[in-house]
Amino acid sequence: MGGLEETIRGLKYDEKGLIPAVVVDAGTQQVLMVAYMNEASLRETVRTGRTHFWSRSRQKHWMKGESSGHTQDVKAVYTDCDLDTVLVEVVQHGAACHEGYVSCFYRRLGEWEVIAEKVFDPKTVYRKRDGR
Amino acid sequence: MGGLEETIRGLKYDEKGLIPAVVVDAGTQQVLMVAYMNEASLRETVRTGRTHFWSRSRQKHWMKGESSGHTQDVKAVYTDCDLDTVLVEVVQHGAACHEGYVSCFYRRLGEWEVIAEKVFDPKTVYRKRDGR
Repeated sequence: MGGLEETIRGLKYDEKGLIPAVVVDAGTQQVLMVAYMNEASLRETVRTGRTHFWSRSRQKHWMKGESSGHTQDVKAVYTDCDLDTVLVEVVQHGAACHEGYVSCFYRRLGEWEVIAEKVFDPKTVYRKRDGR
Repeated sequence: MGGLEETIRGLKYDEKGLIPAVVVDAGTQQVLMVAYMNEASLRETVRTGRTHFWSRSRQKHWMKGESSGHTQDVKAVYTDCDLDTVLVEVVQHGAACHEGYVSCFYRRLGEWEVIAEKVFDPKTVYRKRDGR
């Protein structure tokens, strides 16, 4: 893990120690969500094979699916030319979006027309509105 | 444009007035690059049908392809559940990455193995190293 640890440390985190992570479906390449990782959450993502993030609104670590069961199995992690973004290919269980859609990007500009259908009802999956 | 203008203004920009923009290929859905927009660059993107961004390193507006000719024709713009990221579907001319790859995400974790081949030689396309 020495080399991998160094690679993770060598990414460019912002002044809050965060890096944006674009999560895509390993099969279709559809962008499912964008969230933020710090070094610890990226390390935990690689170690466990499940996506982990840092919640800026709740100021805490979270594993995707910890309350919904909609976990993400990690297939590969990439970075970009500037080393300041990561791309995570996953197999998504359930749906990525806590609003019930497969992808968080369910609205198209033009007054954000909803272009997707919900695959679950958030009210039955989450007890609290903010649980993910 | 009243409604659209309001929609653009209604997104959640960070404390620097920026929002991350994930740019994907409209055909394959491959993630090509991630860059930052402010309200003006998003407005310009929608108005012209070409992607425009704010460069954090150079502190200036830029149009993708302004020096390389590798412009992006915008097919659709989406936002996510939190309204704090945009996803832009484009038809890419040339290649998205200024390093010569189709996508900026050409390295896979495990000491960032290069998994793509260059489609152009940056030295012949860009005069300055940082021109995009």
